[in-house]
Amino acid sequence: MATISEKIFSRASGHRAEAGEIVEAEVDYAMSHDGTSVLAIKAFTEMGSERVWDPERIVVPFDHIVPANNSTAADLQRMVRSWARDQGIVHFFEGGRGICHQVFPEEGFALPGTLLVGADSHSCTYGAFGAFGTGVGATDMAEIYSRGRLWFKVPETIAVRISGRLGEMVLAKDLTLMLVGAIGADGATYRALEYLGETVESLSISGRMTLCNMGVEMGAKAAIVPADGTTEEYLRGRARGPYQPVRSDPGSYDAEMEFDVSDLSPQVAVPFRVDQVRPVGDLAGTEVDQVFIGTCTNGRLEDLEIAARILKGREVKARTLVIPASREVLLQALSSGVLEALVRAGAMIGTPGCGPCLGAHMGVIAEEEVCLSTANRNFPGRMGKGGLVYLASPATAAASAISGEITDPREV
Amino acid sequence: MATISEKIFSRASGHRAEAGEIVEAEVDYAMSHDGTSVLAIKAFTEMGSERVWDPERIVVPFDHIVPANNSTAADLQRMVRSWARDQGIVHFFEGGRGICHQVFPEEGFALPGTLLVGADSHSCTYGAFGAFGTGVGATDMAEIYSRGRLWFKVPETIAVRISGRLGEMVLAKDLTLMLVGAIGADGATYRALEYLGETVESLSISGRMTLCNMGVEMGAKAAIVPADGTTEEYLRGRARGPYQPVRSDPGSYDAEMEFDVSDLSPQVAVPFRVDQVRPVGDLAGTEVDQVFIGTCTNGRLEDLEIAARILKGREVKARTLVIPASREVLLQALSSGVLEALVRAGAMIGTPGCGPCLGAHMGVIAEEEVCLSTANRNFPGRMGKGGLVYLASPATAAASAISGEITDPREV
Repeated sequence: MATISEKIFSRASGHRAEAGEIVEAEVDYAMSHDGTSVLAIKAFTEMGSERVWDPERIVVPFDHIVPANNSTAADLQRMVRSWARDQGIVHFFEGGRGICHQVFPEEGFALPGTLLVGADSHSCTYGAFGAFGTGVGATDMAEIYSRGRLWFKVPETIAVRISGRLGEMVLAKDLTLMLVGAIGADGATYRALEYLGETVESLSISGRMTLCNMGVEMGAKAAIVPADGTTEEYLRGRARGPYQPVRSDPGSYDAEMEFDVSDLSPQVAVPFRVDQVRPVGDLAGTEVDQVFIGTCTNGRLEDLEIAARILKGREVKARTLVIPASREVLLQALSSGVLEALVRAGAMIGTPGCGPCLGAHMGVIAEEEVCLSTANRNFPGRMGKGGLVYLASPATAAASAISGEITDPREV
Repeated sequence: MATISEKIFSRASGHRAEAGEIVEAEVDYAMSHDGTSVLAIKAFTEMGSERVWDPERIVVPFDHIVPANNSTAADLQRMVRSWARDQGIVHFFEGGRGICHQVFPEEGFALPGTLLVGADSHSCTYGAFGAFGTGVGATDMAEIYSRGRLWFKVPETIAVRISGRLGEMVLAKDLTLMLVGAIGADGATYRALEYLGETVESLSISGRMTLCNMGVEMGAKAAIVPADGTTEEYLRGRARGPYQPVRSDPGSYDAEMEFDVSDLSPQVAVPFRVDQVRPVGDLAGTEVDQVFIGTCTNGRLEDLEIAARILKGREVKARTLVIPASREVLLQALSSGVLEALVRAGAMIGTPGCGPCLGAHMGVIAEEEVCLSTANRNFPGRMGKGGLVYLASPATAAASAISGEITDPREV
């Protein structure tokens, strides 16, 4: 009797791993981006390592500060490029290819039943594919660069069963925000969340990625949707190799929760906590200076499509920035007319990457300005000193862009 | 017997203005962007001014640092937006609309026979429309904000006659670089350049803008192409009001120069002087880390089209950044398939604006890195401390992007 997490750690550690145990496990693929690679390479070098464990299993996408915003970033990026070349890293993705958590699955590294570790907290996104995806710090990543292995505490699993049909203009993001509000920012600390039930099963891969992406916002080590036909379909032609989906045995969970989302309305997380979540109606009329649609949470075609559907033939009042999560998404948006609708409505389109989410290089907001963002964090100063970040779905973001204030997308 | 410049200053000052004279003249339209507006507003306030002379004749596009790269920029931009709103500035263009020198003509402010002053050195671009366009500093702009008038020394005019047909893959930029090399960085100091002859007449508006844009790189106060049918055609449906084209009288020039471009090859300006210009063949094989296609010099549809023609179906080797000069250009590139070809080849697309040209917020290059850019300046540190900037046409840029080294576009 074992959970998905226990089964994955059992395979990866070579012995039967139980929740609570500390095991040394082999990683299937590791990921570090332009930001964390810098620190991981430094630690790798300081620990005296010379060659990486497997240059085919370390994935390095540039996404956090692309294109480089100053000489420091440019010099560091040059260092990472040169290191990756010297180490023979096969899967290096230059700036513009997209956000790490989007590129990683698109390139077929996120496979059911695998152990995937990224030097980025939102690596839990890979759980959308039935994998155990988790984030680590740069020194842990240096250890993985070096040996491909790391110590993990096998987490207990909370099963989250969701039923009910999401209403018109109520999206996976609203469901996710509702859960973060209900479970709380530390309600799943060091647990694995496993998402189950008809609502989850009906979500697209894009919606599942939104859902799993925010697992870490509840403290979870991983957030997993068991692989099914939707997963298979996405992976066809993409998967980098064979894989073996696993499922939790009945009764293996540490805890279970149930939610019915039939009556859920669009949700908004207000500053400065992700778990401070309210129905959009409570915030209607809050003035918005900037709207940002993008990120690993909500920068996929589905997200841009719903925004374009709302914005088409209208004009934004708040300045609006749309950043596709990847080049693949950009190309889909280009050929489907989605991009044109967004640009005609007055949206700025940015280079695929993290964009303003981290407040480090573009789309920074001024003191007291409000940004309604589709990202996953609204901590103080996140997008600029003294700025206020509200989190919502791309539909709510688009509706609010038109009116210049927080607006229920069901009312436009 | 008077030149275009003398005729424009005669009208704008209300008396017959001759070269060498200092006149007070009324400006037809003034322009300041997100960068220079900050300083101009400060000076305007310090000089005790309260209301601008004419809120319909001050054009404020945001282009230099869009989206804002840090809290300082965000706070300053908020200040400018708020000032523009308080003053009732009618023609305020939010970030993403495009580069000031592109938006200004697109919006019909650049009219033949007018006096146009911008708080940006490349305001000479408006000469492409038979206007006297010139750049001033922020305190001069504050004076214009306040009274709509400024003292000018009426410049002598050098007539530059160009004959011969440009070869395949030899563009207006090559012609322009050749002229800058021949005339020198101070060869036209405080003169007006007037471009004449069959080659100039055959240039599109886009090519004429490239040509006039770099007038200031020779020290010229203005660079003018007399208005003709091509100008008329561009202005149809755009012009903000009636206008009266003027032409120089024969024999009114201070000096005349002649060039034949029949045998011109693609040109490259090497670091760190714009007038250090060599045929592309001399530089073949120089390794390129970054290619940048865009700016007020070469970010128009024609420029993106030639780049797309070269890049279509290929893949870039150097990291490549393409930034359309305006939303209009972006939309044209979108609907014509140009954008898709560029993205498929691996180019990053940025938000319309100045992009890496000024090295202030994105596309910064590392120490010792080489950028081949379609911009107009290659001074030390321009795009990043210790970086090397080479200037060339979009065709040379695209050809070099594929090979990763400076490449003659006639050879791909």
